[in-house]
Amino acid sequence: MTEFELINLLTEGCAKQAPDLACGVGDDCAVVAGPAGRDWLVTTDLLLQGVHFELGWTDPRSLGKKALSVNLSDIAAMGGAPRFWLASIAFPGGMKPESLQDLYRGMHDAAKESGALLIGGDTSSSPGGLMISITAIGQARSSGSIRRKGARPGDAIYVTGMLGGAALGLNCLRSGERGEDTAPFIARHIDPAPRVELGEALASCGMLTSMIDVSDGLMADLGHIAEASGVGFTVNEPSVPREGTLGRIARRLGVDALALVLGGGEDYELAFTVASESVPEFESRVLPGLPMPGAVRIGTVEGDVATRAVLTADGSVVDTAVGGFDHFA
Amino acid sequence: MTEFELINLLTEGCAKQAPDLACGVGDDCAVVAGPAGRDWLVTTDLLLQGVHFELGWTDPRSLGKKALSVNLSDIAAMGGAPRFWLASIAFPGGMKPESLQDLYRGMHDAAKESGALLIGGDTSSSPGGLMISITAIGQARSSGSIRRKGARPGDAIYVTGMLGGAALGLNCLRSGERGEDTAPFIARHIDPAPRVELGEALASCGMLTSMIDVSDGLMADLGHIAEASGVGFTVNEPSVPREGTLGRIARRLGVDALALVLGGGEDYELAFTVASESVPEFESRVLPGLPMPGAVRIGTVEGDVATRAVLTADGSVVDTAVGGFDHFA
Repeated sequence: MTEFELINLLTEGCAKQAPDLACGVGDDCAVVAGPAGRDWLVTTDLLLQGVHFELGWTDPRSLGKKALSVNLSDIAAMGGAPRFWLASIAFPGGMKPESLQDLYRGMHDAAKESGALLIGGDTSSSPGGLMISITAIGQARSSGSIRRKGARPGDAIYVTGMLGGAALGLNCLRSGERGEDTAPFIARHIDPAPRVELGEALASCGMLTSMIDVSDGLMADLGHIAEASGVGFTVNEPSVPREGTLGRIARRLGVDALALVLGGGEDYELAFTVASESVPEFESRVLPGLPMPGAVRIGTVEGDVATRAVLTADGSVVDTAVGGFDHFA
Repeated sequence: MTEFELINLLTEGCAKQAPDLACGVGDDCAVVAGPAGRDWLVTTDLLLQGVHFELGWTDPRSLGKKALSVNLSDIAAMGGAPRFWLASIAFPGGMKPESLQDLYRGMHDAAKESGALLIGGDTSSSPGGLMISITAIGQARSSGSIRRKGARPGDAIYVTGMLGGAALGLNCLRSGERGEDTAPFIARHIDPAPRVELGEALASCGMLTSMIDVSDGLMADLGHIAEASGVGFTVNEPSVPREGTLGRIARRLGVDALALVLGGGEDYELAFTVASESVPEFESRVLPGLPMPGAVRIGTVEGDVATRAVLTADGSVVDTAVGGFDHFA
C-alpha cells in the first residue's frame, strides 16, 4: 500500500466542502475562513526518527528547524504568511534534556525567521524513537490563496531555486560522503529553507494559476498540480536548475543525476504555473525582481491529461517513469 | 523532568498575544480569530502505543474514536462546536490494512457524531509502534469561549458525569480484570464520550466563569483553573460523583478509590465554575435542563491561591498531595 492509497483510504467518503471551508483535503493546506475575508491556511506534517531522519545525520537544532520549515513550505506554496504553529513531540527516554532544548531552539529559530507564533502542542515520552508532529497555520493574502487546481493548457511552468540537491545530500549521508564538495547538498537535506518570501511575492503578482512545493519530487509534485487541474505537462529537462557539481558527485555515488533532479524530494522549492497571456509581463516585470533564489521557466502545461513528458538534452521525449518520493516505496 | 516542565521549556519566551490571537498556549485550545466574530478553537493531542494505549487492550476502531474524542473534549471545554480535524498517523509495518481501515473508521465515527470534517493530515510508516497525532478545530460561540482564567473567589465548582471510572478501567486492564462488573469502567477508558453538547449548553447559559476538561485528574485540572485564575479551591470529596461499584472494585484491585476519583485522569468530563451571584439561577433554571449526564456541585473557589483543599467525609480537611495524571511520573 502506497502513501497515496493510504491517504485515499483515510479521506474516502469525506465531504470536501462545508461552510467556512474554502478547501479541504487535497492541497498543500486546508483553507478555512478567517477574519476580514483573509483565510487561514492549515497544514500538518509528521517527522519520525528512522523514517524521515536519523539522529546520527543531523543535530537536534537543525532537526527542530526542519520540522517547522517543512510545514512553512506548505504555507509558502499557497502564497500565505506563516502566523501560528502547534508542536507535538514524543521523545525517547534516553534523550538528553540539552538535546530536547536544542530541538525546541531549532523550532523557535524557524518560527522567528517566519514570524510564526507557538500556540499549542502536546508532549509525551516515546517507547520508540523521536517523533515530531507539527501543525502550522498561515494567513492567506486578501486576494486569496494559490491552489493546485488552476493550471490551464499553455500555461508556463516555473520552479524556484535548484532541484535534486536535498536528495543528493541524503545519498551522501547514507554513503558517509561528508567531504567539502558534498557539504552544501547535505545542508540542503538537513536545513531546507522554506520559500515563504518568494511564495508571497509570487502570489502577490496576480499572474499565477497554480503552485505547489517540491517535497515529493518535481515530477510527482507537477503530477499533483496536473491531477488537480485536469491537465498534463512537459518538462524541458536541461532547463531544470541544479547545482553545477551535482552531476559529478552523483556519478561518484553511482546515483542517476536525472532521477535526483526530476524525482528527488525534499528540496522545498516552489513549482508554479503562469497564465500564458501573462508570461511576457511576468518574465519582464516580476521574475527579475523576485527574492532570492528566484525562479526559471522549465516547461509547459499540456491539454492532454495523460502527458507527463520530459524533453531531454538530446531532443528525445521520455514519458516519466521517474517516481516521486514515497515513504512506503 | 515532568510533562509540565517540558511544556514550560518549549513555551519559554513565547509571546502569548498577537493580532488575530485571543488566546495562545495555556488553555484547552488556542483561540484564533474567525469570520463574523466567531473565533476558531485549535487543539492538538498525541496518542502513542505503549504510552497512551496498548493494542491488546483496545480494538482499532475504539482507538481511532478515542484519538479524535480527546481532542473534541478540549473544544467542549471551551464551549465550542467541533468543525474540522487533521490526522497524522504513523503505523508499524506489521499492521494489517483492515486494522488501519478500522482505525480510520473509528475516527470517522467520532467525527460524524460531532459534525467535524477531515481537512488534512499526514501518514507515515513507523519503525516503532502506532502513533496518532490529531489537530481539531472548533468554532466558538459568537459570545466567546469559556476560558480557564475567569474563576473568582466564592464561585461554585461543578463537574459533569462521574469521575475516576476511566482510571479504574485502566487499572482493570492492567490487572486483567475483565468481568461483568469491570466492563463499564474499561469502556470509560477505551471509549470516552467528549461532552460536546454539554459544553455548548453550559457556555450558552452565560453564567460560567471558567471551564476545563478532566483529562489529567480532577485536582490537577482544577489546579490549572486555579493557576490561570489566581485562586484556590476546596473540593467536598463526598459530593464528587462516582459509580456505585467503583469503591468495591478499587478495593478488590488494591487501589485507593479516592486517588481514582480525585486524581485519576482521562474521564473527559467537564469541570467548571459559576459566578456566586448566578448560582441560584444556575441551579434552578440551567442545571435541571442540561443534556446527559448533567452536572453537580462539588466545591468552592477560594481567594487564597495556596488552598487546594479536600473536605473528606469524616469532616477533616486534606491538603492535596494527590497528583494528576502525568505521563512522565
